Amino acid sequence: MWGIELQKKSKISLARQIFLSLKQRILTGEIAQGEELPSTRELAKGLGVSRNTVCDAYDMLLTEGFIVSRQGALSRVAEGLHIVQKEVVSLKEHKKEHVPVRWDFKTGQPDLSLFPWPLWSQMIRHATNTLSAQQLEYSGPKGYEPLCQEIAHWLMRNRSIDVNPEDIFITSGATQAFHLLVDILYKEDYAFALENPSHPGIHTVLQDRGHLLQWMPVDQQGANISCIRDKDISAVYVTPSHQFPLGGILPATRRAALIRLASEKDFYVIEDDYDSEFRYSGAPVSPIYSMDSSRVVYVGTFSKTLFPSLRIGFTILPKPLQAKWKHYRNFMDVQNPVLEQVALTEFLRKRKMDKHIQHMRRIYAEKRNVLLNAVEHSFCNAVQFWGDASGLHVALQFPGMEFTKEFMLSCQNAGIRIQAVSQYCSVQNNHTDKLLMGYGHLNNTQIRKGVKALFQLIAENSSQGLALK
Amino acid sequence: MWGIELQKKSKISLARQIFLSLKQRILTGEIAQGEELPSTRELAKGLGVSRNTVCDAYDMLLTEGFIVSRQGALSRVAEGLHIVQKEVVSLKEHKKEHVPVRWDFKTGQPDLSLFPWPLWSQMIRHATNTLSAQQLEYSGPKGYEPLCQEIAHWLMRNRSIDVNPEDIFITSGATQAFHLLVDILYKEDYAFALENPSHPGIHTVLQDRGHLLQWMPVDQQGANISCIRDKDISAVYVTPSHQFPLGGILPATRRAALIRLASEKDFYVIEDDYDSEFRYSGAPVSPIYSMDSSRVVYVGTFSKTLFPSLRIGFTILPKPLQAKWKHYRNFMDVQNPVLEQVALTEFLRKRKMDKHIQHMRRIYAEKRNVLLNAVEHSFCNAVQFWGDASGLHVALQFPGMEFTKEFMLSCQNAGIRIQAVSQYCSVQNNHTDKLLMGYGHLNNTQIRKGVKALFQLIAENSSQGLALK
Repeated sequence: MWGIELQKKSKISLARQIFLSLKQRILTGEIAQGEELPSTRELAKGLGVSRNTVCDAYDMLLTEGFIVSRQGALSRVAEGLHIVQKEVVSLKEHKKEHVPVRWDFKTGQPDLSLFPWPLWSQMIRHATNTLSAQQLEYSGPKGYEPLCQEIAHWLMRNRSIDVNPEDIFITSGATQAFHLLVDILYKEDYAFALENPSHPGIHTVLQDRGHLLQWMPVDQQGANISCIRDKDISAVYVTPSHQFPLGGILPATRRAALIRLASEKDFYVIEDDYDSEFRYSGAPVSPIYSMDSSRVVYVGTFSKTLFPSLRIGFTILPKPLQAKWKHYRNFMDVQNPVLEQVALTEFLRKRKMDKHIQHMRRIYAEKRNVLLNAVEHSFCNAVQFWGDASGLHVALQFPGMEFTKEFMLSCQNAGIRIQAVSQYCSVQNNHTDKLLMGYGHLNNTQIRKGVKALFQLIAENSSQGLALK
Repeated sequence: MWGIELQKKSKISLARQIFLSLKQRILTGEIAQGEELPSTRELAKGLGVSRNTVCDAYDMLLTEGFIVSRQGALSRVAEGLHIVQKEVVSLKEHKKEHVPVRWDFKTGQPDLSLFPWPLWSQMIRHATNTLSAQQLEYSGPKGYEPLCQEIAHWLMRNRSIDVNPEDIFITSGATQAFHLLVDILYKEDYAFALENPSHPGIHTVLQDRGHLLQWMPVDQQGANISCIRDKDISAVYVTPSHQFPLGGILPATRRAALIRLASEKDFYVIEDDYDSEFRYSGAPVSPIYSMDSSRVVYVGTFSKTLFPSLRIGFTILPKPLQAKWKHYRNFMDVQNPVLEQVALTEFLRKRKMDKHIQHMRRIYAEKRNVLLNAVEHSFCNAVQFWGDASGLHVALQFPGMEFTKEFMLSCQNAGIRIQAVSQYCSVQNNHTDKLLMGYGHLNNTQIRKGVKALFQLIAENSSQGLALK
């Protein structure tokens, strides 16, 4: 009957099935515009359903304007409904066959198997027990106020900086902070200054927007800012506590010069303090923020100290940027979910964070020692370490070697996931002799065997001249 | 001794106190560059602390480059550290004194007091019990796959649309979807077409970016698309199931014409299906997506059906847009937190969502009746309703009246929070005689008393000529 096939056991009601079937045939032109539909009585009889069912279906067609009806006349198909449907081309992604990764030295990877999940679950449970109906509402782009307060206390305990909770803004990780700051700090014809090499996060956003970039070369002490002195700069992005990826600590003289320049030329310094919690030797390094809080936007994250899929970070914003930040965040995603914010507040308040970080610092310090020893054992004096005093990775320099694309491909084919520093560089590239080794997530055996595998591969490639200059 | 005052009971270690104090005085220039610091023995004696403590403090200064030291010589303050600190001007926000809100008719407000929080807490607990360490990692910009699958089932049950879970992308609410779509669909010199009036979400993002806009007038049936026929359009944003804010249902003829035009001129239709779950009379309205899934980007959210601070929504993306979406989301905030996604999966899988929405639909239908009755009782025939068949608000038209800024201010002063439709309009404004009344969050008494208060205010203002043309 009218090409309608009903399935009595379907979860979709009979009326809806009739509606969907008629609608489909109207759209494809099988039932032409102006054509009369059968009367409800007739169709009901034909399909063996109640007349009410057909009336419901016709009502749906009427509500959505597929048919028009006049008192006493049969319903007709409305004009102008026919759509010529294009064939949908199936765009099946071409999947490359990869050699499985056996030794994974990717960077920025915390050891999640040691995360105190039962304790965190307690905090979540506490949060579900304390949240009120009012807190299910939007609470605005700044973030959960008690969390901002606890972060301020935490920053005093952990980084010795004195921050007004009013200036702390919760984010979905550091990534979101960089995205927002690009929009907030943008000035036409002014450049963003980045370290070369640097993390692709902020770099990619700037590239996508087509904004001007100014690269600052990086040496063992971090960024060299002298090249930006006579440029028009809207903001400078730096990783002063542990340059990413080379690990240098920006010396106080450069810091002071940067702050003076920022003041003079009226730009902001974005301080990415991404790995500062894990420092293994030497004294803790203070953030630049502590030098001049009016010029520095401090960006912190809990992705490494807790876990990445938590999606909580924070920014300390100078007052003049706050209104713009609120506006942009409001129309970006409004705010973070409330539940994790309440849980994290309790985690910080009870000093569980302090304990967890102390614990992990010991663990990571041991892993780092295993890595350094394994590298020294395999490569003897052929290698220099960069930035091994903190963080979850080190950079290895092999003087005289050059890690070409071919070499990186042979790593992949050998099941070794490892990155060359040059992958993080702009076109001007002075770091072709360096590799990055992340170790936070590996156990001691994995580290030792991975280093051995890398050594063999480098030895083979060297003898074939692949990795040698 | 050297201006250092130690607090023995502080949580900050003595070494750190010494470090911070010396650092501060170096930065302000009180201790000049090149100046020698006292020997560690001397300072330790002077401060009454152990020599180790002072050594630690000096190590910190050395690490951060505040001092330089040579074997056998006293440490000296490094060059170029002095920062002239600007006076930080206190920018205390000027807080306006507001009359407290007594009758709050804001739109889009669910009744959160009826949210089944104990049930939701169970889902959260279930999620904390099932998450593995691996799931604490980044899982990428698409979203939690089992959630995408449950949303596909839900869409079939609730909206009768057949969606491949591969095409569903989780978002932080609809807000984030609009933000991303502006970046993804932007074409230079092409306009985004918006309904006039429309929601400020996507409009504001477009304005911030300085993109071209094309307004489509809205009548009782929704957007009139004839004005975009000969324009260069990159995307059309519509609310076809319940136009925001006027409530019209876009008729099938206009839908088909829109899809044909999109195909012809190669643009995408963004379908904001924001309120479709709450429909009180007539048959359910299908999304445009069901007409041509290759041309429509469907945007849904759980902010109204569950709660706003959950921050979960989703988008159904045509294949050609998916790679770009992933790229932009990756550098925006990477992904949603994992916990709520797992909880929502279970909530959908167990059909708790279906039950909750059925329950709330009954509740909101009653509130809506109370509102309609109260308005009819007070205003008799002076009022026409727009879009009262679904959603959490209605628009009221008062033919012959004009709701001026002065009138809206007098509402505020009378403790009535209410919005005029004209607040959502572009400059061309044909809706100055309409008010919006949100009722989802109000109880029956609040609705009745609020309508009465509004009636009195309009009556007073009419007699003073304020709200009359």
